[in-house]
Amino acid sequence: MAETSGVERAAAGPHGGKRPRVVIIGGGFGGLACADGLGGQDVDVVVIDRRNHNLFQPLLYQVATAALSPADIAEPIRKSLGRHRNITVELAEVSGIDAQNREVLFADSEPVAYDYLVIATGSDYNYFGHDEWRQVAPGLKSLREARLIRQNLLSAFEMAERKENLELRRAALTTVIIGGGPTGVEMAGAVSELGRFMISREFRRIHPDEMRVLLIEAGPRLLAAFPEELSDYASDYLGKVGVEVMTNHRVLSIEPGRVELAAETIRCGAVVWGAGVKASPAAEWLGLAGDRLGRLPVSETLQVPGHPDIFAIGDTALARDEKGEPLPAIAQVAKQQGQHVGRQIRHLIAGKGGPEAFRFHNRGNTAVIGRNAAVFDFGRFRLKGRFAWFLWALIHVYLLINFEKRVLVSIQWLFRYLTHQRGARIIDEPPLGERTSGPNRPAVLDQPAPIRS
Amino acid sequence: MAETSGVERAAAGPHGGKRPRVVIIGGGFGGLACADGLGGQDVDVVVIDRRNHNLFQPLLYQVATAALSPADIAEPIRKSLGRHRNITVELAEVSGIDAQNREVLFADSEPVAYDYLVIATGSDYNYFGHDEWRQVAPGLKSLREARLIRQNLLSAFEMAERKENLELRRAALTTVIIGGGPTGVEMAGAVSELGRFMISREFRRIHPDEMRVLLIEAGPRLLAAFPEELSDYASDYLGKVGVEVMTNHRVLSIEPGRVELAAETIRCGAVVWGAGVKASPAAEWLGLAGDRLGRLPVSETLQVPGHPDIFAIGDTALARDEKGEPLPAIAQVAKQQGQHVGRQIRHLIAGKGGPEAFRFHNRGNTAVIGRNAAVFDFGRFRLKGRFAWFLWALIHVYLLINFEKRVLVSIQWLFRYLTHQRGARIIDEPPLGERTSGPNRPAVLDQPAPIRS
Repeated sequence: MAETSGVERAAAGPHGGKRPRVVIIGGGFGGLACADGLGGQDVDVVVIDRRNHNLFQPLLYQVATAALSPADIAEPIRKSLGRHRNITVELAEVSGIDAQNREVLFADSEPVAYDYLVIATGSDYNYFGHDEWRQVAPGLKSLREARLIRQNLLSAFEMAERKENLELRRAALTTVIIGGGPTGVEMAGAVSELGRFMISREFRRIHPDEMRVLLIEAGPRLLAAFPEELSDYASDYLGKVGVEVMTNHRVLSIEPGRVELAAETIRCGAVVWGAGVKASPAAEWLGLAGDRLGRLPVSETLQVPGHPDIFAIGDTALARDEKGEPLPAIAQVAKQQGQHVGRQIRHLIAGKGGPEAFRFHNRGNTAVIGRNAAVFDFGRFRLKGRFAWFLWALIHVYLLINFEKRVLVSIQWLFRYLTHQRGARIIDEPPLGERTSGPNRPAVLDQPAPIRS
Repeated sequence: MAETSGVERAAAGPHGGKRPRVVIIGGGFGGLACADGLGGQDVDVVVIDRRNHNLFQPLLYQVATAALSPADIAEPIRKSLGRHRNITVELAEVSGIDAQNREVLFADSEPVAYDYLVIATGSDYNYFGHDEWRQVAPGLKSLREARLIRQNLLSAFEMAERKENLELRRAALTTVIIGGGPTGVEMAGAVSELGRFMISREFRRIHPDEMRVLLIEAGPRLLAAFPEELSDYASDYLGKVGVEVMTNHRVLSIEPGRVELAAETIRCGAVVWGAGVKASPAAEWLGLAGDRLGRLPVSETLQVPGHPDIFAIGDTALARDEKGEPLPAIAQVAKQQGQHVGRQIRHLIAGKGGPEAFRFHNRGNTAVIGRNAAVFDFGRFRLKGRFAWFLWALIHVYLLINFEKRVLVSIQWLFRYLTHQRGARIIDEPPLGERTSGPNRPAVLDQPAPIRS
């Protein structure tokens, strides 16, 4: 170890080295795929992320509904890339980019120089100008938020169990999910399943009939990115498992314990946000104008216009398909783009000519709706129901890169499927932003809404 | 469900029912064992806890060192007791006891009446009058603290990787563990193992030689509760894996990034506290004088003097063995006492005479020191080394009550043993008490100590 590490230190050292340096900002699916493509090559790679892990976001809703643990769906970036000795990982928050001098900037440390830069900084939930709603209605973008949602849901049930007043009890047992895309649909099905099971098996005073799950969508149908047939299937299925689907309803305001629509005000115990995303602030770093969702426009080679040494991929990039339609903000796109850019940079460094256009290969779009129910859209054909669910489960277990996790998640799913149990029903966090006197004060449970700003 | 739930609601309803009601405060090993003994009996049982889960504390150090996930060693109390329809669980924080009127009091809700009360509220770390140290040097008493320690450790390594200055790097890579009891010994071994493995495999700039783990004990030897032979073994083993054992050293002050001893001041990246416990404030609730550790003195029948209807068990009770020695604050004692009190209350209710004296059956005391190293003290004989470690692992997997968890933990251990990998290396929490602008700002890494108050 001591022998190689001297070499490594030099290789990763200050900029002036002979080998070109590629800096990748963001260690998600796109950034990791790109880094992986550069592993073992004659190039220094620095991967910068403000989190130490890549998150398997498609399963984050299972953390929020207590089926999986955070570590089941998160992989340390160092672990994913550890085998490539030419890759250095830095946990740091980027504050800007000096494209003139080819440097990535940080608020708290020295800049890092690059020869090629790959921006893969992803997206965040879009609260459409109401960022204060975030405190009350967390989205599903990070482990911390998923844990917070889990805690809000479980705490609301606990609170209801202690209420004599029927109205307060019903309010606490009402969950509002905003946004009828895949996240909202997945959450609605899972919350309904979790709640009904827990109440009938483990609670004494509250009753399954006192529970409500509302799924609110501003547009005319759920799963707008899917064919209408699958939207209808999702709506029907959710109705059967007790979810009230409210399409064409717009949220006017969100406060602790209440969501206001044009038609009515809903008192509730927990709110979940899944109503749209916006890109990371990468466009601002470059002083460029993003589109309305903040995405960086890129050429068909995924280069940022005017900056041939900068590539942008994944949710933060506005790339278009052959028909000129924007590519969707999903992991498949990010991953394929990362692989493509990794290959292009290898060619550029080897002097094999300029970068080629990126072409997305659609592997199918999917959403899970509940136990035994999922939808698939493969373009040419569609799937729904039990077989789709089985396929969904198979693919997602397979996609969890890490072998150990594959085994763990498989076992937990099998076990949960057979027993209806949830393995990770832990309340261990004070509400976001609340200061605690001791490290373990539980959420205060004296109001219908357990969430505080 | 609908049919039974009417009955249940009446049964769990206001006090005046005919069936006697037993209230158990605390859903740890003691409280759960007691409740379990009353399950299915002709008695209403209410279990009150401020957390929704029982924690398998002997393995909490594995959460702190990224080997296990929080949910692997925590079981929802509702799940443990769900099958007993005569048991109600309430998530609430007790504020006091009105022994005159036989009521448990809460700050935020109506009192709960009891016929028999069992106090099983456990213990907390003792900072010996320096509670401000807790912010810098978390103990291992809750999932939140374990996650915080994990985060402090991992963040310190990440910070070191980004430092050019050797002195700052060495400081960040120094971990100070205070207290040479089982917790301190387990942590020291695990931190040393985790750090050396991670550095050599996944970091590029820092070097294993730059890392220090210091274990500080005020007394003359580690594992004071064990025979001297086993203390010596632990000391030797830790020395071999690179831990600096400092006995006869007292801590004068702890601040972010530094621990001051009489002899020297240590700059460090993370501090862990494991230097002694104190009982929960149950004695105060009853207006009684606890002993110097705050424990409630109890009779040999585990009843609180002057209160024949109140029992106290586990870490919060000061019970003595036949020789008059206080029983240790370990899970075995709490569990046996809980079983005993459950039986006594059954007898009292059935009119089978007054309670009997409790007798502790020592099943052996153990501590794990590292990979392939543990110690056992069975009184008559002792064990140490690889076989003791194997026995320790076997027993602890077995003790994790829940079947699913037994399988999961076994697989993770086997996998980790074979590959040296750690499965739960997630940094997902801002430092305790720090407010964040977004939900995912990482710990600020510009100072040797990542912990803020």
